[in-house]
Amino acid sequence: MTDHPFDVVCIGNAIVDVIAHADEGFLGRHGMVKGTMQLIDDGLAHRLYEDMGPGVEISGGSAANTAAGIASFGGRVGFVGRVADDQLGEVFTHDIRASGVHYEPAPVVGGPATARCLILVTPDAQRTMNTFLGASSLITPDDVDEALTGSAQVVYAEGYLWDQPAAKDAIRLAMDAAIASGNKVALTLSDMFCVDRHRADFLELAEHRVDVLFANEAEICHLYETSSFDEAADRVAAHCELACLTRSEKGSVIIGGDGVRIDVPPAPVDHVVDTTGAGDLYAAGFLYGFTNGFELETCGRFGALAAAEVISHVGARPEVSLRDLAGV
Amino acid sequence: MTDHPFDVVCIGNAIVDVIAHADEGFLGRHGMVKGTMQLIDDGLAHRLYEDMGPGVEISGGSAANTAAGIASFGGRVGFVGRVADDQLGEVFTHDIRASGVHYEPAPVVGGPATARCLILVTPDAQRTMNTFLGASSLITPDDVDEALTGSAQVVYAEGYLWDQPAAKDAIRLAMDAAIASGNKVALTLSDMFCVDRHRADFLELAEHRVDVLFANEAEICHLYETSSFDEAADRVAAHCELACLTRSEKGSVIIGGDGVRIDVPPAPVDHVVDTTGAGDLYAAGFLYGFTNGFELETCGRFGALAAAEVISHVGARPEVSLRDLAGV
Repeated sequence: MTDHPFDVVCIGNAIVDVIAHADEGFLGRHGMVKGTMQLIDDGLAHRLYEDMGPGVEISGGSAANTAAGIASFGGRVGFVGRVADDQLGEVFTHDIRASGVHYEPAPVVGGPATARCLILVTPDAQRTMNTFLGASSLITPDDVDEALTGSAQVVYAEGYLWDQPAAKDAIRLAMDAAIASGNKVALTLSDMFCVDRHRADFLELAEHRVDVLFANEAEICHLYETSSFDEAADRVAAHCELACLTRSEKGSVIIGGDGVRIDVPPAPVDHVVDTTGAGDLYAAGFLYGFTNGFELETCGRFGALAAAEVISHVGARPEVSLRDLAGV
Repeated sequence: MTDHPFDVVCIGNAIVDVIAHADEGFLGRHGMVKGTMQLIDDGLAHRLYEDMGPGVEISGGSAANTAAGIASFGGRVGFVGRVADDQLGEVFTHDIRASGVHYEPAPVVGGPATARCLILVTPDAQRTMNTFLGASSLITPDDVDEALTGSAQVVYAEGYLWDQPAAKDAIRLAMDAAIASGNKVALTLSDMFCVDRHRADFLELAEHRVDVLFANEAEICHLYETSSFDEAADRVAAHCELACLTRSEKGSVIIGGDGVRIDVPPAPVDHVVDTTGAGDLYAAGFLYGFTNGFELETCGRFGALAAAEVISHVGARPEVSLRDLAGV
């Protein structure tokens, strides 16, 4: 697998995170469900921002975080997603390029602003997300450069994109380009409510297009409408070549269609500060390993290591070289 | 001193910091002097940003950081400074208000963008600053609400403003309003190169307008063109009612015009991460104490405590309640 210009091309929402501390009462007053993501419109975004404490702006976006993580491991990675022609668009573009990710955006001029995710981090380090999609929701099949997406070993998409009709077509196009080139397709289910909204589509993708599926325990159980993790794991084994199921402090489980089940312990963390990006960085570590010829167990270990790094500080992008951390 | 609506009104550049890690080689390649601030134009700001690593955006600005710090102690504080009608202007405005600071800006429409300071933090936790002043440089006497500046026990200005001709008039107006109301005037010298550029003006201010002067060791020595800290301390004692001279890990010295000299030890810090804002937060702690009837030694201790908090993390604004930290 060395004749591809890219290890992975990631497709997702191009978002700048606005991260602030908040207490449980704040979530309650605003009707938020802790640990989840809700979509908000421009008006609610402004009202919520006004009520939030002082924030820190850090580039985010689920698949974009994964791309930055793969680059931090030394992987060759591209990103597809839309920003507006505004200051936060510049910030997003700068940060992902400065991370070593190939990104050639066509900024949206005169449309909605660059996407923002207002993230409240509670004292237990859990993050609750409120996303104004703005320009990132304007992704269409025109944004997918099939030469790019067909040139990567893996095309990786985030489930969050499924909330945008034109984006679905874009992702299907990218996935089909990958499949036509004999490459792999990966997907993260993103969020349990996202799974509830798009279960039929996600099941169809898992069965027919996705080789490597990423999900946490709640998401995979919601996909198969079961409260049993083991049942969900059995079901996904019949659909995908590989499923990487993350279970927070219990570590992760890698399920192979051929009866393989590998339990990966979590990597140690001194102090969990902000869980934003844990799943994204797990996917980064796994995909770096997967596209660079490492054993599945090592891929899982890279994922655990990257997730542990990102939850030890505020923000969803790695602060140190994951390549150095992993010793590769 | 309890009949004032505000303890302190701070006047300064309204800046959003863009903080990234860099090595010494990066500073060398860009001709930066570690630990100092240089002004840069729009073109250089773009070229430098392009070359920097991924950043974090956090509201900054020297006097604005001091205002946020005073509010964190529970002090009543206002801020005067200019932003543009853009996303970073919204970020600055939100953050300082959400910190509890009174701020009623008139955003500049159609002019230069909101000020940015590109801050490189080297592995020794030192910060080196590159400031694009943009809209913040447009402050004029019209921005000074004399009712506001005359209603505070202390008007506090940053020396950095002296690089902008119209800003000098604005500060002199605010200082004169304070003096006319029988209130106090405070100034920070900001940076040793800033002192070199404006020595005559700063000496005149110290002699005739400033009651409380803040400076670090290099700045006070540059002001009096001496290499002897003790000589500089003697000289400033003849000019100002009080001088608070910070000396990094050696703590600070409070000099009173009446022969008073109080040595204040530094507050302990587990791990120095980023020295951005240390002087600003020292001033915050001191001014909170000074305007709320505490002994000078306690004022210095509050300053040391606030400085220690802000250098323990990335960014120049406090991350925890300084009131709780100080137990007031």
